[in-house]
Amino acid sequence: MKKSADNEINNLRHQIRTGTFTKSTAGLMPGYVQANYVALPKEYALDFMIWCLRNPRPCPLIEVLKDGETTSNNFLNGLDVRLDIPLYRILSSSEPEKSIVDICDIWRPDLYSFLLGCSYTLDDLLIEHGIPVRHVEANTIVPMFQTNIETVPCGHFSGPVVVTMRPMTDVQANEAVKITENLHFAHGGPICVGNPRALGITDLSNPDFGEPVQIQSDEIPIFWACGVTTQVALANANVDFAITHAPGRMLITSVETDQAKNKLDPLNVLLK
Amino acid sequence: MKKSADNEINNLRHQIRTGTFTKSTAGLMPGYVQANYVALPKEYALDFMIWCLRNPRPCPLIEVLKDGETTSNNFLNGLDVRLDIPLYRILSSSEPEKSIVDICDIWRPDLYSFLLGCSYTLDDLLIEHGIPVRHVEANTIVPMFQTNIETVPCGHFSGPVVVTMRPMTDVQANEAVKITENLHFAHGGPICVGNPRALGITDLSNPDFGEPVQIQSDEIPIFWACGVTTQVALANANVDFAITHAPGRMLITSVETDQAKNKLDPLNVLLK
Repeated sequence: MKKSADNEINNLRHQIRTGTFTKSTAGLMPGYVQANYVALPKEYALDFMIWCLRNPRPCPLIEVLKDGETTSNNFLNGLDVRLDIPLYRILSSSEPEKSIVDICDIWRPDLYSFLLGCSYTLDDLLIEHGIPVRHVEANTIVPMFQTNIETVPCGHFSGPVVVTMRPMTDVQANEAVKITENLHFAHGGPICVGNPRALGITDLSNPDFGEPVQIQSDEIPIFWACGVTTQVALANANVDFAITHAPGRMLITSVETDQAKNKLDPLNVLLK
Repeated sequence: MKKSADNEINNLRHQIRTGTFTKSTAGLMPGYVQANYVALPKEYALDFMIWCLRNPRPCPLIEVLKDGETTSNNFLNGLDVRLDIPLYRILSSSEPEKSIVDICDIWRPDLYSFLLGCSYTLDDLLIEHGIPVRHVEANTIVPMFQTNIETVPCGHFSGPVVVTMRPMTDVQANEAVKITENLHFAHGGPICVGNPRALGITDLSNPDFGEPVQIQSDEIPIFWACGVTTQVALANANVDFAITHAPGRMLITSVETDQAKNKLDPLNVLLK
């Protein structure tokens, strides 16, 4: 895995923290786990967490911070969830949705923070293994589609599974399955290969989120579960307050991808 | 996997439900996932769930029922958590600990039920693959040891990792690692091979729970994380009310082991 130089990392971290970098984190700091971010008042935390457990493919929960905690020594070593995401999205029943560069002023001690794996990690690994990723080459946002598959609901939280789509040849698709199927913390293997109708998708040129990509004549569309599933569920849930990352502006965690499994499971290293 | 005949299953289910079978479920209904059971009042549910997420090897959460729910169409199809465990253990701050055959009379609408994977599933698979399991052959309770490794705490919940031990030859141990390492829902692969001191265990003939087994001269001890970790944490937590299965009397779920991954992840089947 190509690693970023320390000074590049420090520069980017500084720009994000000071609110001068507010763009997509796609392709930034390759080799580091990126995460979807959701903060909810405690009253919603249990339902949300159970909903994630019931839907591990779109919602792979990698860390939870409780009662207003803003950092951890796991995925957030040296980081602060109030500052270290390029742009935040604020959902509130009393005000229109807005985007802001830090959330210090609106932070509340009853907030629970949820970190969920992200397909930017998956893109990283595909490219590392020599599989071209169309939306990365085109420098566009990955095409995303709402499917006709419902998540297993819990309390306030429900709604359709959202997927990302990457076009590939058959050979690349077989390889991509192998590369991603054990990457549970970043959506795992694809959920559908080559058959958009099985997901209720009729027009690949018209994604519900992101931007369309070209599909060549020797390619088929491959679909992975996507963290935007969470955003759709939050919109459906009518919660009175929530904070998430703004679309594409993920939390770049302090953990390198090849260390993620050891962080998720402190007993992952076999003692001899 | 050897499957039980329907009439054997129905008989056993009936005896458990009516309180006439109250013994260990080890080796019963091979091929079905068995689970540790914990019920806690809602006020403790969030901390407990986060503690499980932080310690997935000893505490692999497979299902959560909320707000007094007693069944599900997932791991509990046709089952009722108040009746379908052979014997329950009641922890209460106002009364001494006791064991009872059903919990209908003490059920509360604020209880959350947690199902966690169990190493009986692991024993099943080892035997299925031709690896002898000493405590099953001897018809004794698997030896369990408290280790010097602490779980990652959350709120009320903390305490040492407890492990089960199975003696094996080197060759069997290598095979056992391969068979169990992807069995995340039932404690996964061993956490230690051949080195009890790495876990702070000094006397293999004197387990903290269960019964000792013979270790032959060509064998080494292999250690897997164990669901009793949860019982020790509950004892430490001083919760004012909790229900668990009685030791060894697990919840035999409605799910066959080879279907478990599809139940844990509704998107586990690749669409084509």
